[in-house]
Amino acid sequence: MNIYKKIAVWTENNKVYMINQNKLPFEFEIFNSENYKETANAIKTMITRGAGSIGAAAAFAMMQAAMQAPKNIYNDFIFNAKQEIESTRPTARDLFAATERVYKAAQISAEKAVEEAHKVASEISEAGKKIGEFGNSLISQNSQILTHCNAGWLALVEHGSALAPIYEAFNSGKNIFVYADETRPRNQGARLTAWELNQAGVKHAIIPDNAAAFYMSLGKIEIVITGADRIAANGDTANKIGTLEKAIAAKEFGIPFYIAAPISTFDIKTKTGKDIIIEERSSDEVIYQTGIDENGNIQTLRIASPGSEALNPAFDVTPNKFITGFITEKGIFKPEELYKILK
Amino acid sequence: MNIYKKIAVWTENNKVYMINQNKLPFEFEIFNSENYKETANAIKTMITRGAGSIGAAAAFAMMQAAMQAPKNIYNDFIFNAKQEIESTRPTARDLFAATERVYKAAQISAEKAVEEAHKVASEISEAGKKIGEFGNSLISQNSQILTHCNAGWLALVEHGSALAPIYEAFNSGKNIFVYADETRPRNQGARLTAWELNQAGVKHAIIPDNAAAFYMSLGKIEIVITGADRIAANGDTANKIGTLEKAIAAKEFGIPFYIAAPISTFDIKTKTGKDIIIEERSSDEVIYQTGIDENGNIQTLRIASPGSEALNPAFDVTPNKFITGFITEKGIFKPEELYKILK
Repeated sequence: MNIYKKIAVWTENNKVYMINQNKLPFEFEIFNSENYKETANAIKTMITRGAGSIGAAAAFAMMQAAMQAPKNIYNDFIFNAKQEIESTRPTARDLFAATERVYKAAQISAEKAVEEAHKVASEISEAGKKIGEFGNSLISQNSQILTHCNAGWLALVEHGSALAPIYEAFNSGKNIFVYADETRPRNQGARLTAWELNQAGVKHAIIPDNAAAFYMSLGKIEIVITGADRIAANGDTANKIGTLEKAIAAKEFGIPFYIAAPISTFDIKTKTGKDIIIEERSSDEVIYQTGIDENGNIQTLRIASPGSEALNPAFDVTPNKFITGFITEKGIFKPEELYKILK
Repeated sequence: MNIYKKIAVWTENNKVYMINQNKLPFEFEIFNSENYKETANAIKTMITRGAGSIGAAAAFAMMQAAMQAPKNIYNDFIFNAKQEIESTRPTARDLFAATERVYKAAQISAEKAVEEAHKVASEISEAGKKIGEFGNSLISQNSQILTHCNAGWLALVEHGSALAPIYEAFNSGKNIFVYADETRPRNQGARLTAWELNQAGVKHAIIPDNAAAFYMSLGKIEIVITGADRIAANGDTANKIGTLEKAIAAKEFGIPFYIAAPISTFDIKTKTGKDIIIEERSSDEVIYQTGIDENGNIQTLRIASPGSEALNPAFDVTPNKFITGFITEKGIFKPEELYKILK
């Protein structure tokens, strides 16, 4: 069972495998896709999600496209596939970083695309390990840590981004407690972060997103760490909706606010957060809610008043002034130091 | 059908009637209680909720206690009933304001208690009407307004507190749009505010609580208005969990943040927000979610990862520095002007 390997996305014999994160934590199911269209659709429908896992899945999708491409229309086929893969989650920088690299390799040969796709995935995974080691230095003994959404190993192939320092701190014997924001509307905190932390044995509690500032105001949170979906050259960061609110509140209460992300999430071509496109998702994600009934069956209910619609922006942009630093595989950097790692 | 009257709590023949807000918006049911214990329990289980409606229900509960009290133990009975009613929702100032007034009247006679309870309820209702008129002056043509939780007529017997200015603006012909925070964990925004606005024909959208700062950052919100559960003498305000986050974000983006509440919600004996007791509610409210299935049946699902628990503080305290002003039945006052109305 892959669960023990703690790997979210992988490939074998040209098939792409992913833990189905739409079913977690209620069912553990491995999804597999035979071709790039299926893989792209799995990204779009969030069977896999999280910046790094999207990046790896996109790399594998691009690889599948190169493998599938009929010889007589090879170039057109891989070009169109790239467009299609990139249209799935417009905000995720890792997706574009991955397709660009694998597409370039695919222009040489399908074999090169395979090699590059594996390289993309393993680099993301290794970045997670390093992020954990660097980030651990920020976590004191007896720390209480707030995180938003899920930026664990599910979201970064392995290890995680925001959760990597938490796992490293825990494994090095520190006594820590994690406040996991529920992260409406898709509840990645309550479903995925809580599931990961529970598996790992890390002490934690789910809190309503509304309660983050409350616990900050009580002095119960020493540090906030979240992941990122796209980071502009100046450090403005797109991440799961609600990150901006937590960052503003953290600044108000003088609590350090860190973004943990591999270099592949940084986008030097995007100068500031104003240039980041924010994905709007379906109203239904807010209005309906999925869970398990008392018999353990997955069901979906309408939780909002019939007759009303919802707005559902998937991300927001946190300006660099609210960010204490970025935890990357190359070290920890303040927003104004990013030029050292971006070129 | 009481729905057309838009009254949330009332009394007839010593019975207390309330719209069952636990079933809204999926079922419209009138709950009635025969005695003070049932009424107190209805407050505790949130069959009625919202500062003003709690106040009216508590007044009627105290009235029922006086009516029920055996002559030979009258004083002990009404004293114990007061304690019991007050233990239901410790944060709600209106509850204590109501029990204190009706208890005092009950010490003279049960008849006086009846009279006073009716007076409490009608004063709350009249306050809502005035709050609407004063608050309307803050709402410009084409305004987009953010509100949190439900502070409509359901929450204040009639008219509402935070929604009263919105109804008044709408009825006076202004073109307005309301962003209704979903308000996890009990979803009073998605369930009750959306239901009220839909009934009234006011344009609105439900947003995840996480999205409030995002819309502020886009310049889409001109004013924030919420209700309150208890306001300290210095203006520090306890209101539904998440209010603090919205207030901090509003200040960051220079958006006026108003609290709409009747004078009965102000508590001159509580000097600052530090003295306000915050009610902790069950973990289950976060972990389970109620809604309707496709056949229209009310069901409850577990939405969080099995094995994890949640924390569920019902309120937070917003310091006065984040509050632009208080909309009351006596006019609009800045925090530093509250001495004019409190004595």
